Amino acid sequence: MSVAEARDDIHSLMTEIGVAARSAARLLARASTDSKNQALRAAAQLIRDQRDKILAANARDVADADAGGISQVLRDRLALNVARIDAMAEGLELIASLPDPVGEVFWETTRPNGLRITRVRVPLGVIGIIYESRPNVTADAGALCMKSGNAVILRGGSESFHSSQAIVACLHDGLRAAGLPVAAVQLVPTRDRAAVGEMLIMNDSIDIIVPRGGRSLIERVQRESRIPVLAHLDGNCHVYIHEDADPEKALAIVHNAKLRRLSICGAAESLVVDQKVARTILPGIIDDLSRSGCEIRGDAAAQKIDQRVIPATTADWSTEYLDAIISLRIVDGIEDAIAHIEQYGSHHTDSIITENEGAAARFLAEVDSAIVLHNASTQFADGAEFGMGAEIGISTDRLHARGPVGLEQLTTYKYLVYGNGQVRP
Amino acid sequence: MSVAEARDDIHSLMTEIGVAARSAARLLARASTDSKNQALRAAAQLIRDQRDKILAANARDVADADAGGISQVLRDRLALNVARIDAMAEGLELIASLPDPVGEVFWETTRPNGLRITRVRVPLGVIGIIYESRPNVTADAGALCMKSGNAVILRGGSESFHSSQAIVACLHDGLRAAGLPVAAVQLVPTRDRAAVGEMLIMNDSIDIIVPRGGRSLIERVQRESRIPVLAHLDGNCHVYIHEDADPEKALAIVHNAKLRRLSICGAAESLVVDQKVARTILPGIIDDLSRSGCEIRGDAAAQKIDQRVIPATTADWSTEYLDAIISLRIVDGIEDAIAHIEQYGSHHTDSIITENEGAAARFLAEVDSAIVLHNASTQFADGAEFGMGAEIGISTDRLHARGPVGLEQLTTYKYLVYGNGQVRP
Repeated sequence: MSVAEARDDIHSLMTEIGVAARSAARLLARASTDSKNQALRAAAQLIRDQRDKILAANARDVADADAGGISQVLRDRLALNVARIDAMAEGLELIASLPDPVGEVFWETTRPNGLRITRVRVPLGVIGIIYESRPNVTADAGALCMKSGNAVILRGGSESFHSSQAIVACLHDGLRAAGLPVAAVQLVPTRDRAAVGEMLIMNDSIDIIVPRGGRSLIERVQRESRIPVLAHLDGNCHVYIHEDADPEKALAIVHNAKLRRLSICGAAESLVVDQKVARTILPGIIDDLSRSGCEIRGDAAAQKIDQRVIPATTADWSTEYLDAIISLRIVDGIEDAIAHIEQYGSHHTDSIITENEGAAARFLAEVDSAIVLHNASTQFADGAEFGMGAEIGISTDRLHARGPVGLEQLTTYKYLVYGNGQVRP
Repeated sequence: MSVAEARDDIHSLMTEIGVAARSAARLLARASTDSKNQALRAAAQLIRDQRDKILAANARDVADADAGGISQVLRDRLALNVARIDAMAEGLELIASLPDPVGEVFWETTRPNGLRITRVRVPLGVIGIIYESRPNVTADAGALCMKSGNAVILRGGSESFHSSQAIVACLHDGLRAAGLPVAAVQLVPTRDRAAVGEMLIMNDSIDIIVPRGGRSLIERVQRESRIPVLAHLDGNCHVYIHEDADPEKALAIVHNAKLRRLSICGAAESLVVDQKVARTILPGIIDDLSRSGCEIRGDAAAQKIDQRVIPATTADWSTEYLDAIISLRIVDGIEDAIAHIEQYGSHHTDSIITENEGAAARFLAEVDSAIVLHNASTQFADGAEFGMGAEIGISTDRLHARGPVGLEQLTTYKYLVYGNGQVRP
């Protein structure tokens, strides 16, 4: 088969998937909460029942990935075990237990002319999700889209191909058990990367593209997509230690924000410290991080405080390490701190440590990030921690949804207007 | 000057405008409600005081447009008079009187760990608006962006260039009087169309593009823009007369929906009638529309009912006439009606006329449009009629904002999290 023929094949394949998704979306938009929950609970049970089958599919993926030479971090994300499969099933049951956003009336008014106007949540339609080789995302994203009444086209990383197929088979059986169309959840059935390019121009059949993954994927999607994008860009999260910080809170929060988990987008990547406390609070923090195996890359002032601080380059200020490394900058006051975060941050999640309410209020008002915290760890940047139950990720976009993308964020709304013959004067 | 030199000039000019807008946006985001209202009220007074100056600038635009051979419809939109200038000033005062969306906490939770999480509205940032030659949009859009704490870059149709300059001068003086940066409202100071292309790739300095205008403009914007777009596409609005419609309501609503104003996006363009009432309710409606000078383009069944119905082509079903023309289709029941609207409509505004509550509920649930009405005229598709005070237009997009785009829709949100030392377990 020639390259052109292969491309034609991918085009026909994706067109078919798009048509099926659109038609499933119409049915799912009107599905009852009960039937969606039934599908989710049935799928959860099937994931448990078919644990060995899923593990076998995953073992095949991991073996292929090992043969191809995968990094340890990516391997960790790819590999499943009994606990992870149980967690997936519990995730589906959790989503079944959450309130259904579809049909919620969240604004209502009656006009002087008697017209009653309501604003009611409805599904977005068809969602395209492009993500890394993490089998659990297949389950979570599929379930969140299902519960919010959307059809979804899933394009997971090619290393997770067989694992994702096994998981989607369970979702399909769940949909069937509830009398819902299986095309509501479709996994792109090819590893060919041309399928991603096709997805990005299917604006007739996909309403929104959610890319999850590295910066290069997201930049490609933002450049090529003819469909609105809800991007999950990097989390270059900061902890700023203000001059009025409580030393114990500062120590505990920096440790947790950096080291609790290294690879999540809410992990702190940069420590910004007021020079007034650089010789009081900071030395203990440097000592704690260093002893915990964290590399510290600092500016000239920071290097003078402790010889374990190695020189930072300008690139460090913008880097999301997702590793046991943190950048460290000494600043002259809150204005400097905010300016640094605005210039180098990724508008994801930033925290101020201070006992000064005025300084906290200013930081919260002026730092233009999806999540801004006072005296708390950046690792709280998570839909479940916000009480939203579950999420697809954290949006760094400004439009539609900012921060955790849960069920509500996967809906749009329409206005329903109830009259009794009104005409406009 | 060579074409390449001219392009470099436009590029430098737009870059300067972008940098100034971004810096003004930071200040405006933190401006008090009082200062924003003061700026709006001062600008309103200035528009009244400088009425003659604005009329002179407008006369120059109209003379140029006449010399270039402008259509009557476009000339009507362009031309100002005393009443229209007064309406502009009143519009600014109305916007000053509306509640400020910025800072509104619209979701709040306290978690078991004591974290208090709030979701608070913040401005979008810098808004780029590309619109037709309607001077009043310069005032309305500038004022709505100002009140919602955004900076705005306005690119109006070139025919309205001098009128818009005179109006923006008033907005600038208002901003100055309130101590706010004049760069919060900038009019692109060239008629060169290359400026639009530049705007669409300024993703560092513009956060959202709002195109208003014909389909070709909006398609160009959607194709070229590297910035998220909030499109205001055409309103191919339908009135569906169900078999259980009240004949008097049907007659009054169709007349109003089609003929009250021809050129607004909420004007009905298509009449869909159940065959069961095609020989009872429809003849009177055809007679009324025809006597009012409205051309009726119908399918074969409709042509049999009245000889004044002329043949429709398939293109008619998708056409937004904005004129005294309506398409007419006879359908077999509500399912057919909904299918027709889904296939040919523009998902803007559609209305069902019926006394049957079940049919109404089904139509409202299944028609996937921004606004769906029961027993009311489609011409109510308007932010002011919805109690939102004022609007930039009606979004036909599904993301971020659907339907009327008022102050709230020109904001995004962020999460503010209040802790006392919490770390994540």
